[in-house]
Amino acid sequence: MQIYLFSRQGEVPQRLDSVEALPEEGFVWLDFTRHEAQSWPKRVEQLAGFKVHEDHVADSYNGDHPSVFEGTEDYDMLIFQGLVPEDCESHKDLIVTKSAAFFLFDRLLVSVHAEDSASFSLVKRKFCETKLRFPSTPFGLVHVLLDTMVDRSLPVVNELEARLEHLQDMLLDPKNPFEDWHELLSQRKQAHALELLCEQNRISLDTWAREMRVELTDAQRVRLNDLREHLQRLQRHADSIQKDIEVTMQLHFSSVAHRTNKIVQTLTVLSAIFFPLTLVTGIYGMNFEHMPELHWHYGYYAVLAVLVLVGGGLMLWFKRRGYF
Amino acid sequence: MQIYLFSRQGEVPQRLDSVEALPEEGFVWLDFTRHEAQSWPKRVEQLAGFKVHEDHVADSYNGDHPSVFEGTEDYDMLIFQGLVPEDCESHKDLIVTKSAAFFLFDRLLVSVHAEDSASFSLVKRKFCETKLRFPSTPFGLVHVLLDTMVDRSLPVVNELEARLEHLQDMLLDPKNPFEDWHELLSQRKQAHALELLCEQNRISLDTWAREMRVELTDAQRVRLNDLREHLQRLQRHADSIQKDIEVTMQLHFSSVAHRTNKIVQTLTVLSAIFFPLTLVTGIYGMNFEHMPELHWHYGYYAVLAVLVLVGGGLMLWFKRRGYF
Amino acid sequence: MQIYLFSRQGEVPQRLDSVEALPEEGFVWLDFTRHEAQSWPKRVEQLAGFKVHEDHVADSYNGDHPSVFEGTEDYDMLIFQGLVPEDCESHKDLIVTKSAAFFLFDRLLVSVHAEDSASFSLVKRKFCETKLRFPSTPFGLVHVLLDTMVDRSLPVVNELEARLEHLQDMLLDPKNPFEDWHELLSQRKQAHALELLCEQNRISLDTWAREMRVELTDAQRVRLNDLREHLQRLQRHADSIQKDIEVTMQLHFSSVAHRTNKIVQTLTVLSAIFFPLTLVTGIYGMNFEHMPELHWHYGYYAVLAVLVLVGGGLMLWFKRRGYF
Amino acid sequence: MQIYLFSRQGEVPQRLDSVEALPEEGFVWLDFTRHEAQSWPKRVEQLAGFKVHEDHVADSYNGDHPSVFEGTEDYDMLIFQGLVPEDCESHKDLIVTKSAAFFLFDRLLVSVHAEDSASFSLVKRKFCETKLRFPSTPFGLVHVLLDTMVDRSLPVVNELEARLEHLQDMLLDPKNPFEDWHELLSQRKQAHALELLCEQNRISLDTWAREMRVELTDAQRVRLNDLREHLQRLQRHADSIQKDIEVTMQLHFSSVAHRTNKIVQTLTVLSAIFFPLTLVTGIYGMNFEHMPELHWHYGYYAVLAVLVLVGGGLMLWFKRRGYF
Amino acid sequence: MQIYLFSRQGEVPQRLDSVEALPEEGFVWLDFTRHEAQSWPKRVEQLAGFKVHEDHVADSYNGDHPSVFEGTEDYDMLIFQGLVPEDCESHKDLIVTKSAAFFLFDRLLVSVHAEDSASFSLVKRKFCETKLRFPSTPFGLVHVLLDTMVDRSLPVVNELEARLEHLQDMLLDPKNPFEDWHELLSQRKQAHALELLCEQNRISLDTWAREMRVELTDAQRVRLNDLREHLQRLQRHADSIQKDIEVTMQLHFSSVAHRTNKIVQTLTVLSAIFFPLTLVTGIYGMNFEHMPELHWHYGYYAVLAVLVLVGGGLMLWFKRRGYF
Ligand SMILES: [Mg+2]
Ligand SMILES: [Mg+2]
Ligand SMILES: [Mg+2]
Ligand SMILES: [Mg+2]
Ligand SMILES: [Mg+2]
Ligand SMILES: [Mg+2]
Ligand SMILES: [Mg+2]
Ligand SMILES: [Mg+2]
Ligand SMILES: [Mg+2]
Ligand SMILES: [Mg+2]
Ligand SMILES: [Mg+2]
Ligand SMILES: [Mg+2]
Ligand SMILES: [Mg+2]
Ligand SMILES: [Mg+2]
Ligand SMILES: [Mg+2]
Ligand SMILES: [Mg+2]
Ligand SMILES: [Mg+2]
Ligand SMILES: [Mg+2]
Ligand SMILES: [Mg+2]
Ligand SMILES: [Mg+2]
Ligand SMILES: [Mg+2]
Ligand SMILES: [Mg+2]
Ligand SMILES: [Mg+2]
Ligand SMILES: [Mg+2]
Ligand SMILES: [Mg+2]
Ligand SMILES: [Mg+2]
Ligand SMILES: [Mg+2]
Ligand SMILES: [Mg+2]
Ligand SMILES: [Mg+2]
Ligand SMILES: [Mg+2]
Ligand SMILES: [Mg+2]
Repeated sequence: MQIYLFSRQGEVPQRLDSVEALPEEGFVWLDFTRHEAQSWPKRVEQLAGFKVHEDHVADSYNGDHPSVFEGTEDYDMLIFQGLVPEDCESHKDLIVTKSAAFFLFDRLLVSVHAEDSASFSLVKRKFCETKLRFPSTPFGLVHVLLDTMVDRSLPVVNELEARLEHLQDMLLDPKNPFEDWHELLSQRKQAHALELLCEQNRISLDTWAREMRVELTDAQRVRLNDLREHLQRLQRHADSIQKDIEVTMQLHFSSVAHRTNKIVQTLTVLSAIFFPLTLVTGIYGMNFEHMPELHWHYGYYAVLAVLVLVGGGLMLWFKRRGYF
Repeated sequence: MQIYLFSRQGEVPQRLDSVEALPEEGFVWLDFTRHEAQSWPKRVEQLAGFKVHEDHVADSYNGDHPSVFEGTEDYDMLIFQGLVPEDCESHKDLIVTKSAAFFLFDRLLVSVHAEDSASFSLVKRKFCETKLRFPSTPFGLVHVLLDTMVDRSLPVVNELEARLEHLQDMLLDPKNPFEDWHELLSQRKQAHALELLCEQNRISLDTWAREMRVELTDAQRVRLNDLREHLQRLQRHADSIQKDIEVTMQLHFSSVAHRTNKIVQTLTVLSAIFFPLTLVTGIYGMNFEHMPELHWHYGYYAVLAVLVLVGGGLMLWFKRRGYF
Repeated sequence: MQIYLFSRQGEVPQRLDSVEALPEEGFVWLDFTRHEAQSWPKRVEQLAGFKVHEDHVADSYNGDHPSVFEGTEDYDMLIFQGLVPEDCESHKDLIVTKSAAFFLFDRLLVSVHAEDSASFSLVKRKFCETKLRFPSTPFGLVHVLLDTMVDRSLPVVNELEARLEHLQDMLLDPKNPFEDWHELLSQRKQAHALELLCEQNRISLDTWAREMRVELTDAQRVRLNDLREHLQRLQRHADSIQKDIEVTMQLHFSSVAHRTNKIVQTLTVLSAIFFPLTLVTGIYGMNFEHMPELHWHYGYYAVLAVLVLVGGGLMLWFKRRGYF
Repeated sequence: MQIYLFSRQGEVPQRLDSVEALPEEGFVWLDFTRHEAQSWPKRVEQLAGFKVHEDHVADSYNGDHPSVFEGTEDYDMLIFQGLVPEDCESHKDLIVTKSAAFFLFDRLLVSVHAEDSASFSLVKRKFCETKLRFPSTPFGLVHVLLDTMVDRSLPVVNELEARLEHLQDMLLDPKNPFEDWHELLSQRKQAHALELLCEQNRISLDTWAREMRVELTDAQRVRLNDLREHLQRLQRHADSIQKDIEVTMQLHFSSVAHRTNKIVQTLTVLSAIFFPLTLVTGIYGMNFEHMPELHWHYGYYAVLAVLVLVGGGLMLWFKRRGYF
Repeated sequence: MQIYLFSRQGEVPQRLDSVEALPEEGFVWLDFTRHEAQSWPKRVEQLAGFKVHEDHVADSYNGDHPSVFEGTEDYDMLIFQGLVPEDCESHKDLIVTKSAAFFLFDRLLVSVHAEDSASFSLVKRKFCETKLRFPSTPFGLVHVLLDTMVDRSLPVVNELEARLEHLQDMLLDPKNPFEDWHELLSQRKQAHALELLCEQNRISLDTWAREMRVELTDAQRVRLNDLREHLQRLQRHADSIQKDIEVTMQLHFSSVAHRTNKIVQTLTVLSAIFFPLTLVTGIYGMNFEHMPELHWHYGYYAVLAVLVLVGGGLMLWFKRRGYF
């Protein structure tokens, strides 16, 4: 658990080792990793006197919990799902999600997140480097954290799109016998998962904006809208990817049907040319005693000429009708 | 029929043999199996003085009734559909549903359910083992029962998903000639039935939350929301399963078309190589008197060489163009 | 035209030959078949003093009019579409609809329906057999009539489902060359028509419930809800049937593609085995003077051995690779 | 421009040559064809003192403008799209639309329509033949005109449906090699255009009913609802036509795949029978010196017997397995 | 940066080199290209005393920002996406979008747009030529600019439609082996992008109309509605294009399947005719000592007759059954 004290004036937040009571002004941030979060509701009760609902506590321990907002008289709970974009190249599944739970009290923010949450580390590192305007309300801090989580999904979407463009090129390449159906299936599943994730995150933010316990200032509302907009753009992206896969599948399918058509045409033309020629040689290969043509002096040459004429004629005729 | 008395203080519920009047505090639970439920409205009228509407009584006897909530002046009726997950492996159809009907009066809860409802037995067993916080209102008891019903659907969904993953692997296996169309059809039907079940359960809970006769406390509302959330997750699962089946079907279809394409290609290449060779042997098998080549000393070897050159040349040419 | 007088106390309704004025209590039911309905608005004006809108009168004469509710100051008009389930087996089209029009005044109910409407006959027969609780308001009587109409659709849906299951089995039977496309098309159309019918009936009932001129009692509302629920279940049924047809079509299609694939494979394997064998016999059928093998004593047996070895070898190789 | 004066008492409307001022009672109808409509806003300003918005004037000149309603303080503008059903048989495109614009002032109606609008001529002809109840408000006159426009779409829809039924029969005929893809594409486009037209007309009427400047009487509202209902029925029709085309396409496609399957099967069976027979004749056509069978007295008959037995046996076997 | 002063009386706007304070009446337009826009918020603060929110400033610098409206206490922000229709023929991607950001203060309009925005140049050119009614409010000026942007999308849509019609003709041409799958994919993507662009622009305008800081006059509202209508028409167009591509794809696919079917039929007929003929010549090519037919005087002619009869008979039979 890490404890930070944020002053009302937006000064550099202080890291504390322990905290006994809530400050008069500003707020305290209790940041738990899911691993060490077992006793967090007790701590909160000791510190602030509020009881957290049991089901909410259980939800905060669930790393796969979908995004959700729920308001109570004493606090607002927001669960938000982030992507884990590290090691894009090594992993097959890009869309690995991890939930973070936020509990916003009047002068207290509690967060519970995965041990290796890069977004939380990143925000804290920025605190040290004093790069960030320091938030003076729990809302402000949650906004910074969510913003970081959403921004970190962008490279994932780009990687997803790049992979799909590659699959698309392979699907529409007439030379390439595409075989990677499992990969294609998995890509589509991931794009759908991303769409669902964005949609649920957005719905949770909408509910939060509507039912939040505090009144937002104009500036805070602008920042929240910006966040929702970014999620909306991600969702639209994920939706487009799915549509594109679908259409590419159909185009691929059409192009395979086309190629089969042309191959069967070639086979038919081959048969139409060679079947009659072979029949002619079969006729003069029969062993009848009385076959006058066999005794003609130029019979053989005549048959050769017939073969060439028939074969060449058929070939020309098919070529003219565009059969190959 | 089983009778339980729940005190206001959340003490261990008492099992009674008969009940003459409703208690001043707490409430009475009349639990009927559908088999023995014929006379339940009479009993309720004797005990509490309320008449239950005829159509509601008829609905409570219908084990396949879809989820629904309906409120009247005297009581709330909630019908909820559960899954029957026993013996997953032996049965073909996973999604077998059974309805339970709940009638919530002021200090009386009536439930009508299938004889073999495992959820009701489970809850009662937990009462004996004093594991459960005992509910002090009809709402609380219904919540515990619904929660148990929903939790018991999870293994069914997992089994359904496992079966579908197996079907998916079979569909995309290029070696395997998939034939289990009836099974695939049945799986899709079951996923759709599950989606409908969740959706209707959820809609009934939403109506209940909106039109309930009693005012819920903050804590009760949190617990109800949690239940709705679990149903929503199940529904999303069922929806994903259906989408996946659809996409896999299309991929499977594409891969079959691919294979047909390649086989026809092979056939065409075989014909293109052997048709000319066979024609050559046909020509020198003719019985003309004057065929000078037949008398050449190396004629036979020359023809063999031509056969090898033409056949090998065509084979090389096709191999280079990637035809096989 | 038939005239019935319903008393306020729910006594047995009296059939009258003619009626001069509306009763002080209870209500009068004027029941017209569409055939004899030409002068009904005049009669109503004489009896009750209300003018019915021209467009409404025209709608009541239209036996194919879709379900609709419209309220005016003086009366409510409800048009409801029923199914005609007689002679299921003899007819091809199951979903034949006939509209009934209801005009609800304060103490007068007018109905206009098809001559052969079985639902109206059935309700009247029940009156004679005093099986029914007799309604004491126009609403109550309309409810009984609608309930009978909806109940009579159930066998139609069951027959429709049975037929489709039969089509489904035929479509997925690998032996059976399915040809009944017209039948399939008609079944899907009928399921869609049924869905539309239920949806529109339900929408009309919803509008009626919302905009009705009289205030309903709790018990009346319960009965109306039950009716809407039954329609909803029918609609869900019809929707499932359509989805199932769609999916079965796709599965059927996939299974045909599979079979084509396997047949082409067989053809290719046959060619791959017989083309080389035939070439060999073609070679030793040539008439060259100098073909040493022809003079070998065991040449013929050697060639036979080669044929058996090559043919058998190829067959084994293809069998091992699972080609047939 | 044609000018008509409608009295409040619903008397026969008078045709005027010119009009200087609006009447005290009743209303004036200024009817412009689009050709002569250039100066209509000026005329209206002179006559009634109202300025019409520039964008509205521009919309009234646009014969392809989609349906729309817009209300201002001084007047209501309604643009409505009609079909042009003349010469169904000669034209390829059935769904040719032409817009009419209506401007409803307090005692003035302005209409702008295509020169050859049959609906407007028809209504005027009915005026002369005193067949029509004469409207006494601008609303009444607009209703009569819209009703005529909608009624005249019915034959178009019937013709469209007839054409599609014909296409459907051709698509599902196993004998007929369907080639009319352009026609099919055009039919679907027209059904979609019709659906859009109805939907937009309906939306415009809904907006008009909601935002109209005058209060409608009960009877007027009934008539407006009837109009909306007719449009809804047309729309449902157009939607069904589109669905049917889609499903027929899929069925057609399945039936083609079926036929290909059977043809390939025939080809495979032919090869399976003739390949071995031809090989046998090839073997006994070889020229080896030592081929004992060639010298057997009944060798030839034995081989003929073998050919008949093998060929007939294979044929029987395939017939029994249902291959042809 | 360009500065214009608009008077309240709608006089010709004055171009200023610099501006120190906002005018008492009328308004000032600060027009920035994105390139030079770095310091615009500072300038606005100096001139009018308002602080622009940071996220809004960032959005104004983003040339790909989707359409959005956001209102604050001090100003309205509207981001609108336009198409870049220049050089239609040279570029492959028609739908290139560029955002313009508008900030509407009380007597100040700030716009930020792409350097080469033709719409902005066009509007300014019209100012010089005094062709335009000069707007007297920021709303009026924004409307003129948006109207110009929307009008300039029309040629893009027409070009898109022309290209698609060409693709459609190629897809349905039975002669043409269509190969341009990448082009088709790109066209569909562009139509979808256009639909999204219109939808978002329309949603932004709707939000603006609803939440605008100023009250619009009747005439202003008419103009805004006209703009929304034009966008709606564009969107409907883009939607139709997508539907058409989809249907054409299916038709194309069906027609390819048809052709494959006919080709395979031809191949099967060829085999059915030539296989038996070749077998006959094979039989009389065998070298048995005792083959009586070989010694018949007219044996050869008899076999020739048999070949002609069998071949011709089969051909006739197939022709009659419509196989080719
Ligand atoms: Mg979604
Ligand atoms: Mg959701
Ligand atoms: Mg947005
Ligand atoms: Mg979204
Ligand atoms: Mg979105
Ligand atoms: Mg989606
Ligand atoms: Mg498809
Ligand atoms: Mg569903
Ligand atoms: Mg659902
Ligand atoms: Mg429902
Ligand atoms: Mg949820
Ligand atoms: Mg849900
Ligand atoms: Mg679904
Ligand atoms: Mg429907
Ligand atoms: Mg409807
Ligand atoms: Mg229901
Ligand atoms: Mg329903
Ligand atoms: Mg439907
Ligand atoms: Mg498909
Ligand atoms: Mg549409
Ligand atoms: Mg529509
Ligand atoms: Mg619209
Ligand atoms: Mg209707
Ligand atoms: Mg409608
Ligand atoms: Mg549609
Ligand atoms: Mg298809
Ligand atoms: Mg779309
Ligand atoms: Mg869209
Ligand atoms: Mg949007
Ligand atoms: Mg519009
Ligand atoms: Mg639109």
